[in-house]
Amino acid sequence: MGKNRLEAFSDGVLAIIITIMVLEIKVPKGEEWAELSALWPKFLSYLLSFIFVGIYWGNHHHLLHTVKRVSSGIIWANSNLLFWLSLIPFATGWMGEAHFAKNTVILYACMLMICGLSYYILQKVIQSGHEPDARREQLFHVQEKKGMLSLVLYLLSIVFAFFNTAISGLLFLVVAVLWLVPDRNIEKALEEGE
Amino acid sequence: MGKNRLEAFSDGVLAIIITIMVLEIKVPKGEEWAELSALWPKFLSYLLSFIFVGIYWGNHHHLLHTVKRVSSGIIWANSNLLFWLSLIPFATGWMGEAHFAKNTVILYACMLMICGLSYYILQKVIQSGHEPDARREQLFHVQEKKGMLSLVLYLLSIVFAFFNTAISGLLFLVVAVLWLVPDRNIEKALEEGE
Amino acid sequence: MGKNRLEAFSDGVLAIIITIMVLEIKVPKGEEWAELSALWPKFLSYLLSFIFVGIYWGNHHHLLHTVKRVSSGIIWANSNLLFWLSLIPFATGWMGEAHFAKNTVILYACMLMICGLSYYILQKVIQSGHEPDARREQLFHVQEKKGMLSLVLYLLSIVFAFFNTAISGLLFLVVAVLWLVPDRNIEKALEEGE
Amino acid sequence: MGKNRLEAFSDGVLAIIITIMVLEIKVPKGEEWAELSALWPKFLSYLLSFIFVGIYWGNHHHLLHTVKRVSSGIIWANSNLLFWLSLIPFATGWMGEAHFAKNTVILYACMLMICGLSYYILQKVIQSGHEPDARREQLFHVQEKKGMLSLVLYLLSIVFAFFNTAISGLLFLVVAVLWLVPDRNIEKALEEGE
Repeated sequence: MGKNRLEAFSDGVLAIIITIMVLEIKVPKGEEWAELSALWPKFLSYLLSFIFVGIYWGNHHHLLHTVKRVSSGIIWANSNLLFWLSLIPFATGWMGEAHFAKNTVILYACMLMICGLSYYILQKVIQSGHEPDARREQLFHVQEKKGMLSLVLYLLSIVFAFFNTAISGLLFLVVAVLWLVPDRNIEKALEEGE
Repeated sequence: MGKNRLEAFSDGVLAIIITIMVLEIKVPKGEEWAELSALWPKFLSYLLSFIFVGIYWGNHHHLLHTVKRVSSGIIWANSNLLFWLSLIPFATGWMGEAHFAKNTVILYACMLMICGLSYYILQKVIQSGHEPDARREQLFHVQEKKGMLSLVLYLLSIVFAFFNTAISGLLFLVVAVLWLVPDRNIEKALEEGE
Repeated sequence: MGKNRLEAFSDGVLAIIITIMVLEIKVPKGEEWAELSALWPKFLSYLLSFIFVGIYWGNHHHLLHTVKRVSSGIIWANSNLLFWLSLIPFATGWMGEAHFAKNTVILYACMLMICGLSYYILQKVIQSGHEPDARREQLFHVQEKKGMLSLVLYLLSIVFAFFNTAISGLLFLVVAVLWLVPDRNIEKALEEGE
Repeated sequence: MGKNRLEAFSDGVLAIIITIMVLEIKVPKGEEWAELSALWPKFLSYLLSFIFVGIYWGNHHHLLHTVKRVSSGIIWANSNLLFWLSLIPFATGWMGEAHFAKNTVILYACMLMICGLSYYILQKVIQSGHEPDARREQLFHVQEKKGMLSLVLYLLSIVFAFFNTAISGLLFLVVAVLWLVPDRNIEKALEEGE
């Protein structure tokens, strides 16, 4: 069973998820700048989700690269991840529509947590179905550290949502930056921090 | 004529079908949890259809794997399957919108039956155009058994729709689990059941 | 310059065109069968367009198979074809929305004519950029005959739109069948008809 | 790390961007020609954007062809380009909805400028990560000249938007033609112009 088709299908779904989110930013009726600038929460939530789905695409790319044999388990763990990622446009649209209101921010944080967990499950399924490999272990090690840190930041963003959702939004951005920084740097930073 | 492009086109259509279904779950106007939880029938019907389309993708993957030569017959049997699958988002949206009302559940069951039949036709077309192959026969044998069982369950879900649509929904889930369980187990279970 | 990416891009666009058409069939508000059956013109126009776009995909598949070198001319003739095909969902939606009203049927026929012309241009561009090849010539020969016949049928469907659009719809179906019948049969039929 | 998946993902996103734009052209309620012809600004803006995204696809195709090793930098510069391109449907929809009103034309010009800048950044990232290569240098040289000229034309179109947006639209078309003309011709024309 080839992994090419699994990659192609996942890429297709991720490409559609990342692009249909923009359909939530409805074209204003009038032509005034005020009507355009009123869309900033939708634009901001789109930007945030574009970065997150982009990061998932990049990491998924690396992860499948370490797969040698596609098993039923991998197919279903992958489908599970894609399912939760496919709900990101909904959570993004709600947060943008409601101008980063408390509940919408909490849902968004929960969705990102569930996606993170699904990614972790996929990792574990791949790990259990393959013989240990130094390069894979190292990749997973870094990603687990980042994943734990992200989880803490998501929980913090839920706590802050009760006081000031701007701080929650900022914490989402911190998570994004955490993953955008190339592995080597973050690894070094984490090692120095120990 | 290469089968790569047939696979790529089918994967593209399936990836779009599975993802545009989420557009039926419209973002609530307000920010209350009550507005979110009112969407549960839409969410549930999306989950169900995501699993079904995912199963079709997996089975389609296996099925095309046994194809050696793409004929006109295979192209059109494949297009026929994709056509009916492309109506799943509509049936899903109706069932979610109408909170699993009787008629919508019956339509959904009928759609799944037509998709199953179309899959069976594709199988037969592939079989008739290729020389007998032990591995393919075995795969088809298991899938035909599962297919017959699914048909019975779909018919039952239509009957139960007149009394209690929750039972129909449960039967859809049973069909999904039937296909999600890896082939070897179900084959063993079926053999023991004989 | 590889033709793989041209094929992949075209397949992607065709897969999206064929699938987003279904979004024009809006889910009914209520749960009555009457509301579902009121959608038959939308369903019929979707079916018709699904077949046409499917035929274009199949023919495009064959056509690009004869390409050895991708030139700028081929890229732009291909883009031109994709542009007009991308307007099919709009023409389909209008015809379904207006219950096959005269003007909408005329627009639909015109769109199919323009798509046919664009396909012909792509054929000619490929022909002019490659050395003569017996297999390609034969394929083009059959397709040109079918294309001319389709043109006549489209013109007839425009004429009949002024009297009875059901006949126009039937003529569209005749064109679809004309292309669905495998090449050898139609070729034989055409030869016998001469 | 393979560049095939980067190409596939980019192709997917570009294919979706180019196709979902057509969803902005809503089907008229009635069946009169007047209702159809009232859509000309939407059709025109769609045509313009289809050409621009098509040009980006073609250039992106050439650009990635010169890539030997995919780095993190290339992935993120590519994602940045895709993000801004994904906003083209929004800018297109607004310009069409508002009948090429001043502000919408300015936004459209700005979006095209940002996309051009993002493309330039991707070029530079690729250049800095690879050893000098005569063919790549030549390609970049031509594209930078065209890019500079486009920038001037975009700025002019913003200036003219304050007086007559038809001229701005014409300038967009000039940019499109500038890129559609095959490289050799424009290179020769530019050289002769010096």
